[in-house]
Amino acid sequence: MQTKKIILDCDPGHDDAISIILAASQPSLDILGITTVSGNAEIEKTTMNALKICDLVSLSDVVVSKGASEPLIRLRETAPGIHGDSGLDGPELPEPSRSWSDEHGCDTIIRLVKESKEPVTILPTGPLTNIALALLKAPEIKDNIEEVVLMGGGTFGNWTPTAEFNIWADPEAAKKVFDSGIPIVVMGLDITHQALATKEVIDQVQKIDNHVAKIVGELLVFFASTYKEMFNFAGAPVHDVLTVAYCVAPELFKTKEVNITVETKGEFTAGTTLIDLHGITGRKVNAKYGLELDVEGFWRLMIEALKKF
Amino acid sequence: MQTKKIILDCDPGHDDAISIILAASQPSLDILGITTVSGNAEIEKTTMNALKICDLVSLSDVVVSKGASEPLIRLRETAPGIHGDSGLDGPELPEPSRSWSDEHGCDTIIRLVKESKEPVTILPTGPLTNIALALLKAPEIKDNIEEVVLMGGGTFGNWTPTAEFNIWADPEAAKKVFDSGIPIVVMGLDITHQALATKEVIDQVQKIDNHVAKIVGELLVFFASTYKEMFNFAGAPVHDVLTVAYCVAPELFKTKEVNITVETKGEFTAGTTLIDLHGITGRKVNAKYGLELDVEGFWRLMIEALKKF
Amino acid sequence: MQTKKIILDCDPGHDDAISIILAASQPSLDILGITTVSGNAEIEKTTMNALKICDLVSLSDVVVSKGASEPLIRLRETAPGIHGDSGLDGPELPEPSRSWSDEHGCDTIIRLVKESKEPVTILPTGPLTNIALALLKAPEIKDNIEEVVLMGGGTFGNWTPTAEFNIWADPEAAKKVFDSGIPIVVMGLDITHQALATKEVIDQVQKIDNHVAKIVGELLVFFASTYKEMFNFAGAPVHDVLTVAYCVAPELFKTKEVNITVETKGEFTAGTTLIDLHGITGRKVNAKYGLELDVEGFWRLMIEALKKF
Amino acid sequence: MQTKKIILDCDPGHDDAISIILAASQPSLDILGITTVSGNAEIEKTTMNALKICDLVSLSDVVVSKGASEPLIRLRETAPGIHGDSGLDGPELPEPSRSWSDEHGCDTIIRLVKESKEPVTILPTGPLTNIALALLKAPEIKDNIEEVVLMGGGTFGNWTPTAEFNIWADPEAAKKVFDSGIPIVVMGLDITHQALATKEVIDQVQKIDNHVAKIVGELLVFFASTYKEMFNFAGAPVHDVLTVAYCVAPELFKTKEVNITVETKGEFTAGTTLIDLHGITGRKVNAKYGLELDVEGFWRLMIEALKKF
Repeated sequence: MQTKKIILDCDPGHDDAISIILAASQPSLDILGITTVSGNAEIEKTTMNALKICDLVSLSDVVVSKGASEPLIRLRETAPGIHGDSGLDGPELPEPSRSWSDEHGCDTIIRLVKESKEPVTILPTGPLTNIALALLKAPEIKDNIEEVVLMGGGTFGNWTPTAEFNIWADPEAAKKVFDSGIPIVVMGLDITHQALATKEVIDQVQKIDNHVAKIVGELLVFFASTYKEMFNFAGAPVHDVLTVAYCVAPELFKTKEVNITVETKGEFTAGTTLIDLHGITGRKVNAKYGLELDVEGFWRLMIEALKKF
Repeated sequence: MQTKKIILDCDPGHDDAISIILAASQPSLDILGITTVSGNAEIEKTTMNALKICDLVSLSDVVVSKGASEPLIRLRETAPGIHGDSGLDGPELPEPSRSWSDEHGCDTIIRLVKESKEPVTILPTGPLTNIALALLKAPEIKDNIEEVVLMGGGTFGNWTPTAEFNIWADPEAAKKVFDSGIPIVVMGLDITHQALATKEVIDQVQKIDNHVAKIVGELLVFFASTYKEMFNFAGAPVHDVLTVAYCVAPELFKTKEVNITVETKGEFTAGTTLIDLHGITGRKVNAKYGLELDVEGFWRLMIEALKKF
Repeated sequence: MQTKKIILDCDPGHDDAISIILAASQPSLDILGITTVSGNAEIEKTTMNALKICDLVSLSDVVVSKGASEPLIRLRETAPGIHGDSGLDGPELPEPSRSWSDEHGCDTIIRLVKESKEPVTILPTGPLTNIALALLKAPEIKDNIEEVVLMGGGTFGNWTPTAEFNIWADPEAAKKVFDSGIPIVVMGLDITHQALATKEVIDQVQKIDNHVAKIVGELLVFFASTYKEMFNFAGAPVHDVLTVAYCVAPELFKTKEVNITVETKGEFTAGTTLIDLHGITGRKVNAKYGLELDVEGFWRLMIEALKKF
Repeated sequence: MQTKKIILDCDPGHDDAISIILAASQPSLDILGITTVSGNAEIEKTTMNALKICDLVSLSDVVVSKGASEPLIRLRETAPGIHGDSGLDGPELPEPSRSWSDEHGCDTIIRLVKESKEPVTILPTGPLTNIALALLKAPEIKDNIEEVVLMGGGTFGNWTPTAEFNIWADPEAAKKVFDSGIPIVVMGLDITHQALATKEVIDQVQKIDNHVAKIVGELLVFFASTYKEMFNFAGAPVHDVLTVAYCVAPELFKTKEVNITVETKGEFTAGTTLIDLHGITGRKVNAKYGLELDVEGFWRLMIEALKKF
């Protein structure tokens, strides 16, 4: 079987964690490495969380590199109100069995892309700082990147009225990625809010009798509780997981080719994505934007994946 | 009967024209004056259009003052793709029976507000330049303004992916109004797109046997055709008319008290309204934002109004 | 004798006051009107100060109109550290014999320019808000403006490291004036700092035996004291007076034709003037910029003027 | 003798080249490494030029690492009008005897600073991209940086009316350095324009009978010719050389402790340095700014240095 070479660039984070778990379960995916970024929590925390999840799903041979501790230009801000103080509150996970690599996350991305014989797909599920740094240091890696499938943006916001957290946290990095010419697939709030882990979904997860599913259940319960409290949602939208699901089962996704631009200069709108759904800007298509999810199919994929552990 | 003193500040424009017509039909409204602004078309055109509509509905004793020909700071841009070259393409209307006042629109607003014994409600349905100029010249008029009920903004855009035309056309003026402390009611795209003059609505209008209804029918047919072409809409959203309807029948509207801020500095987002529906910004409530329209009730009001002519 | 028709648009202010006095002494100048603006002090204060100076030099038939109380877009800031709390601290001046006109300053500018048979020269010595408002309301007045001779800007700043107060106080208004196409002469800090009322100059003024010279002496003493304290200057630079002197004796001034642009968007540089002395921007010439003053000639003009009272 | 550990971060460039030459001649300086950046010319050119100059002055054991090929956020722009197409037009220099390191410039800076037992002084004479990248990847290196002695900025500009080229070319990187808390010494245009290689200076250089002096003479002749043409200067200001001279002979420099901030957001002023010479901003001192050069002393140092080769 032809596997897809992927790099997970993440800031776990509940939905990042579940993304790693889903990816680990998929024989069609070859995880070349995991790089971390400051985002949902500070860089040490997101890196420790990534290492813990690797242990959980036996990804001990996958390199985990600590990446950017702060955005390109702006001050760091994290999201403890959503992910708890650790960035991954909820389940008790043992201390990781190993430490992170000596290599900086952006250098791991550069090395892995350069070393790979086949084009690599990068799945950023946090702020895009590492990808931007990699492109700054080694613009030539563009030629061996198949696609960037990222979680970020939306026609509305969750961190400000118009901006989604990942893009908002490092708008300049995001702009660099969107302007790079690399093929980009975007899972924004318009589609990730369709992937709601409702009570019914969580019930299904909790019925699966293995340790990984138990942890995922606990992650979802915590995540659903903060989304209930902050946004009065009827479940937890597992945003980041859609990037992995898209790589495995693109047929579950209806996307549209559009131009997406990132505002970096506004007084109130920095980090806002302008998603030109109606083609009114005259700007060139640079991304596929996720519009509609086969919700049932998505959760079926997820449940089947969890049963394998 | 206690009448509401209103000033219509407009840039006719098909929906502005229908607003004037609806207002003229309502005994509960006392139209103190009509001021015009550059917006849907250049100032001379919007002013001529206002005068023509006044003739149509016998508002010959209402002062019509030409206002700002350009935005406070930015370059003027008009919307001929939506309203045709005249700003009011569609029906044939005779040349107006009179000319506009010698007084500038912003001075008319200042004078009418100062002269009125009761607080005045201003209904801006174009860019907010005249209101901003009036506030610059005579900030003291705030004390005799009951409310500004305006059409503008939205959680999404129609002129850019995130900005609505009226706010986009003069963001600095809009910001001045939103920051003024005056009570503001906002009919944004979220609610005005509910007021769609569909084929069924237009049929109803066309069946009314009087000259005014005939003209309104022609306005709607033209307006629906450009919205079909540009946005693939199933009808014409009569945005501006909601401001008048709100003054007459607020019970048709579900609104929410929110903070609304206008971006003036973005590279791509100037004119974007940040409507804090979930209270995530911590900024103070400064507006009522229209969320839901009783669509049937709205069209009933409109049809009844047209039958009176 | 052919007189030059001028309007003084000012925010007295010590140097504004001396400008009015110099203008009043010149038979070659026909002062059509005086308009005031918020700047060195709040609008009521600058207007009262203008009226007091008119009384001092018997300009009782010249209209004095109160203009803008705040900048176009930004928050008002005044300069009490330089001009004292009244805007004209130092001499005791009696309450004015009359009040200001009912007409807003911008409307007075529009009316006077339109009424004048000969082109009018406008001398703004405060923030450019009134001129911007006049251009917004009546862009057609450009055709009857001979020149705008203004005090503002510089290749360095006095209110921030790069911005001069008048331009900084309303950058958007300044930009509108510089972009208007009207011929502009600029007395910036580069030349106004050459017009230093030193101890020797003040001595000369104090020796003149009339009431006006006595008041001017007191103005200069106060002004020199704050400049000593804040900038460690060896005298008071009578910035604004250069605009009047230029209209009377342009031969005292070496100027250069340059492009001048105003920054309105910077985080730290709003109100900075970009004066393209070396032609490196490729932008078109839009102003004459004052480079060198015949200092002796200037003070001779001033002393002669004061002797006439 | 206690030597000062230095890293030269440069974009040769005529004055960068002479900086390397001066540094190579000084026994009190220990050149740990040379890193290059895109600036005066594209990165491959500036790196080749650095290697050629190393050969010229026998610095063959000093690591030369290629750094950033583009600014953090903005589009790259170079200065062929000043430095010729090669970045070092004028003398004929043989192809370098070796290639650049495999290590990226920013990584070389990080490594050298971390490895050094004594605090390191960094001398950036191009855009500050490499330093910013190093701080992004390894903020902890701040603790082992003694000082950053940089050429950049000024109270006036050379690339725009208010901005100097190095800062203008990457304002965001510059801001990061100025805001970093590292002690900074700034050689801006105010002082570098005092270090003019006039005809007399060039004569002196040309009389020195060695190959290095011959090349420096040719560099100065070319550099003086472009400065004559573009700015009508009577010589070539050897901007960058002042950073090295300051490390060797700080007594030649009169500096002032000031706050320096970089504008990154202006429409016309991005890259402008705000140098608060009069303490009017209230912002905290973060740099020593070069005000006055002992010109004679400086050229004496330079001539003595050249004689040693």
